[in-house]
Amino acid sequence: LRLKMPAPPRADNEILYLGIDGGGSKCRAQIVAASGETLGTGLGGPANPFHNMQQTIDSILAATTHALNDANIPVDDINRLIAGVGLAGVNVPGVLHKMKQWQHPFRELFLTTDLHIACLGVHGGKDGAVLVCGTGSCGYAYVQNVATTFGGHGFPCGDKGSGAWLGLEAVRAVLLAFDGLGTATQLTQLLAADLKAEGLMMVDAMTSAKPNDYARLARWVFAAADNGDHVAQGILRDSADYLSALADKLLQTGAPRFSFIGGISAQLTPWLTPAVASRLSEPLGQPEEGAIYFARQQS
Amino acid sequence: LRLKMPAPPRADNEILYLGIDGGGSKCRAQIVAASGETLGTGLGGPANPFHNMQQTIDSILAATTHALNDANIPVDDINRLIAGVGLAGVNVPGVLHKMKQWQHPFRELFLTTDLHIACLGVHGGKDGAVLVCGTGSCGYAYVQNVATTFGGHGFPCGDKGSGAWLGLEAVRAVLLAFDGLGTATQLTQLLAADLKAEGLMMVDAMTSAKPNDYARLARWVFAAADNGDHVAQGILRDSADYLSALADKLLQTGAPRFSFIGGISAQLTPWLTPAVASRLSEPLGQPEEGAIYFARQQS
Repeated sequence: LRLKMPAPPRADNEILYLGIDGGGSKCRAQIVAASGETLGTGLGGPANPFHNMQQTIDSILAATTHALNDANIPVDDINRLIAGVGLAGVNVPGVLHKMKQWQHPFRELFLTTDLHIACLGVHGGKDGAVLVCGTGSCGYAYVQNVATTFGGHGFPCGDKGSGAWLGLEAVRAVLLAFDGLGTATQLTQLLAADLKAEGLMMVDAMTSAKPNDYARLARWVFAAADNGDHVAQGILRDSADYLSALADKLLQTGAPRFSFIGGISAQLTPWLTPAVASRLSEPLGQPEEGAIYFARQQS
Repeated sequence: LRLKMPAPPRADNEILYLGIDGGGSKCRAQIVAASGETLGTGLGGPANPFHNMQQTIDSILAATTHALNDANIPVDDINRLIAGVGLAGVNVPGVLHKMKQWQHPFRELFLTTDLHIACLGVHGGKDGAVLVCGTGSCGYAYVQNVATTFGGHGFPCGDKGSGAWLGLEAVRAVLLAFDGLGTATQLTQLLAADLKAEGLMMVDAMTSAKPNDYARLARWVFAAADNGDHVAQGILRDSADYLSALADKLLQTGAPRFSFIGGISAQLTPWLTPAVASRLSEPLGQPEEGAIYFARQQS
C-alpha cells in the first residue's frame, strides 16, 4: 500500500507533461509538473504499434489514466497533458503513418522512437549514445539533432547478439551436438531441464517460439559460460564482438556520453572489448523520463 | 488433355499398392499392380501432419481419389489398396501417435517418414543414404533395417545449410552491410530488386516470413556467388561445409549407395567436399515409388 500526501492545489491552466515509454510487454507513464516535480506514474499493457495498433493506443490510455489517478488529477484533465511518446516500430514506414492518424485526447502529442527516449533518459536529456541489449539489440546515437540507428531490424534477421539471438544459438548448438556435428556442451543439459524436453522433443517445445521464448533461454548461455563451457563462451564472444563493433560505430558519431542498457547488458558488459567498456557511463534515468525531456524540447 | 487406353480387366481381388509422398506443399499418389505396372497417379494438397492433421488426411484422400480415377478403378475400391505413406513430421512423437489414430479406408496402411520413402525411391528399394537439401535440410540412412537421421529439426533452429537458411543468412548479410558492420555484397541489390524493398523496408517485407519465403531468396545467393561475390560465397561455403560433415556421418553408417536430392542439391553439389562429391550416385526414382517399395516390404 502506497500512502500519498494530498496533492497541492494547482492552477487549472498549469502545463503538465506526460512521458510514455511503450514496449512490447508493457507501457509506462509518468506525469510531471512544469517545475519538474513528478506527480504520478502508471502502468499499461503492451504497446508495440508494429504488432498491434489498437492495443498500443489502449495501453497508452490505460497507463495515462493510472498516472492521472496516481497524481490525484481528474481524468478529464487528460487534455491538459503535453505528451512525449516513445514507441518501438515507429521507425518503420507505415507504422508511423498509422500512429499519427490517432485522434488522441492530449493537448499535444510528440511521437518518437523508444530508442530516442531511452537515449534521452540515459543522458539526462542531452546528446549521447546507447547500446541496448535485451530480447532484441540495437544501437542509437543522438548528436546535434541527428539521430543514428544501427542494428535492430528484428529477430531472426537482425537483433544479432540479443537475448533472442543467444537463445537461438543455444538451441542450434544443442542440436548440432545432438547430431555429433558440434562440440558437446553443458547447454544440452541446461536446455533439456528448462524445456523439460530432450533431442527431438526440444524441437517440439520450440515450435512457434517467439523472440521472448528464445530470449528466456539466454540465461543458460551465461550460466554455462560461467561454468567454463566453450560452446557457450563462443556464443557470448560472437554476441559481444558484434555489439562492440556496433558500439564503435556509435562512438564514431561523436556522442559525448555512452551507456549500455537492456535486460542482459550487465551480464554482457564483461564480454565487450576493453576499448568499448572503457567508454561506458552509468545510465542517469529511465525512458519515460526521456519521453518527458522530449515533450519539453518539442513543445 | 491426356488420352488413356481403356484399362485391361483386372481380378477384383488383385492386390494393388498405393504409394503416398506427403509434403508441405503437395501430396503425390501412385497406384501400381502386383506386377509393378503403374496404373495411375494423382496429386493432392499439403500433407504435413505436424502443421495440420486434418488437411493431411484430406490431401492423402484427394491424391488417392485422383490416382484411382487416373487408373480407371472405381473409388469404392479404395479398400483394395495396400498403402505405403511417407510423411514429414511423423518422426516427432505425438504427431505419429495422432496420425496412427486415423480410421483410414485402405486395406492396410504402413506409415513412415518422408525421408524413408525418399531414400527407398532413390536407391530402388535397397539400403542407402540420402542428403536432402531444399527448403529444409536433412540426412537419412537406411542400412540393415536401421534408420539413422541427422539434421533437420526445422527452421530456424535447425535445417542448417538449407534454402531457408541461405535466405536468412542473405538477409542478415544485407542488414550487416547496411549498418556498415559487414562486407558490402551484391546481395543488397539482388534482394532489394526481388523484395522491391531496401534497408528498413526489407525488414517490413520479411515480417512473418515463413521458411518458404526465406528459401525463395536462396537463388540470389547462388547468383551472387557465381558472379564472384565473397559474402555469398562464404554463405555457400558454410552451408556446404555443414552438409559435407552431415554426409560424412551418413557414409559412416556403411550405406552402400549415397545420393544428394532436393530443390537446391544440384546447385550445391559443386560446393561439397571432393570426398563427399566422389561418393554421389544418381537418384533412381521418386519418393512415391519409395512408398510403394515400403508397402510391399511391410505387407
